[in-house]
Amino acid sequence: MKDEIRVLGIDDGYFLKHGDKKVLVVGAVLRGNKDLEGVLSCHIDKDGTDSTKRLIHLINNSKHKNQLRYIITNGTTLGGFNILDIKELYARTNVPVLAVLRKRPNQQKVERALNHFPDKKNRLERIRKAGEIYTYRNLYFQAAGLDESEAKELIEKTTKGSNIPEPVRVAHLIASGVTYGESTKRA
Amino acid sequence: MKDEIRVLGIDDGYFLKHGDKKVLVVGAVLRGNKDLEGVLSCHIDKDGTDSTKRLIHLINNSKHKNQLRYIITNGTTLGGFNILDIKELYARTNVPVLAVLRKRPNQQKVERALNHFPDKKNRLERIRKAGEIYTYRNLYFQAAGLDESEAKELIEKTTKGSNIPEPVRVAHLIASGVTYGESTKRA
Repeated sequence: MKDEIRVLGIDDGYFLKHGDKKVLVVGAVLRGNKDLEGVLSCHIDKDGTDSTKRLIHLINNSKHKNQLRYIITNGTTLGGFNILDIKELYARTNVPVLAVLRKRPNQQKVERALNHFPDKKNRLERIRKAGEIYTYRNLYFQAAGLDESEAKELIEKTTKGSNIPEPVRVAHLIASGVTYGESTKRA
Repeated sequence: MKDEIRVLGIDDGYFLKHGDKKVLVVGAVLRGNKDLEGVLSCHIDKDGTDSTKRLIHLINNSKHKNQLRYIITNGTTLGGFNILDIKELYARTNVPVLAVLRKRPNQQKVERALNHFPDKKNRLERIRKAGEIYTYRNLYFQAAGLDESEAKELIEKTTKGSNIPEPVRVAHLIASGVTYGESTKRA
């Protein structure tokens, strides 16, 4: 794996207190853990079901598409419980997808929160579909289109000072800074 | 001047075809020409007169304020003809301000465009107030709170591959990427 591969980091500008119905999602194109080369954005429905579709469209229509080697997302729940199907995202863009998390997801807590949704069963199925949860350094991750060892190498290549891969850290700073006027610290 | 000084780059997401009445302005906090450390944002009126006031408020209320050594703006006209008073911005934040431009401003063209504005005289006065236009490398610049040689050193420290200082290049990518869904190439 080259040092300066193009990676798209994805995060949203969503926090618990979010009042809007639409949530900003930001994609940051970085070369390895270095320069910012481009910024993509779209809006998804808070607690909706359109995150996968919107990201497929955003990526496939981007001028950066042909150079992208990997996508790294901040987990698989964007905009509240708008659950991202990383297998589908990989299949429809042909770019391998790594979803990273700082904490192991609490399955019981998620199931409880999903009780409010009439389509709870579908959402749980989408969460399960993301597959096995691996751990490396201080991160948990799920992967589509790359295996465990390639995922670990990708984490190595894209991480520097912070614990989180740079493309995700940068996407987080942008999404929170634009949504709230000032960025929040942790991705 | 240290290599890793904190610099706030400012640009807007405005182009000629901009339809909205409000224009997104983004501030990107970088260490020298390197890591993105924070993102600030606010909205200003298209062709309005509030850019100076909004930026003073944004900067003075930022958690990054105490670490900021310089502000670099992409010119002095944001959001169309919402003219930034860099002397006032410096005086009210106590952070020296450098305004950089890729092209020498065409005074005749600006005066003609300002014919549409009833307060043309005030706007021209604010443009003049930014003071002498210097040139260095492929850039033109105006400065408030720093002299010509300090400004040149700041340009050296903050520029790498591109012609434009990194904090402005990054602010441009973010503002255009969030406003238009995909960033445009040139700051």
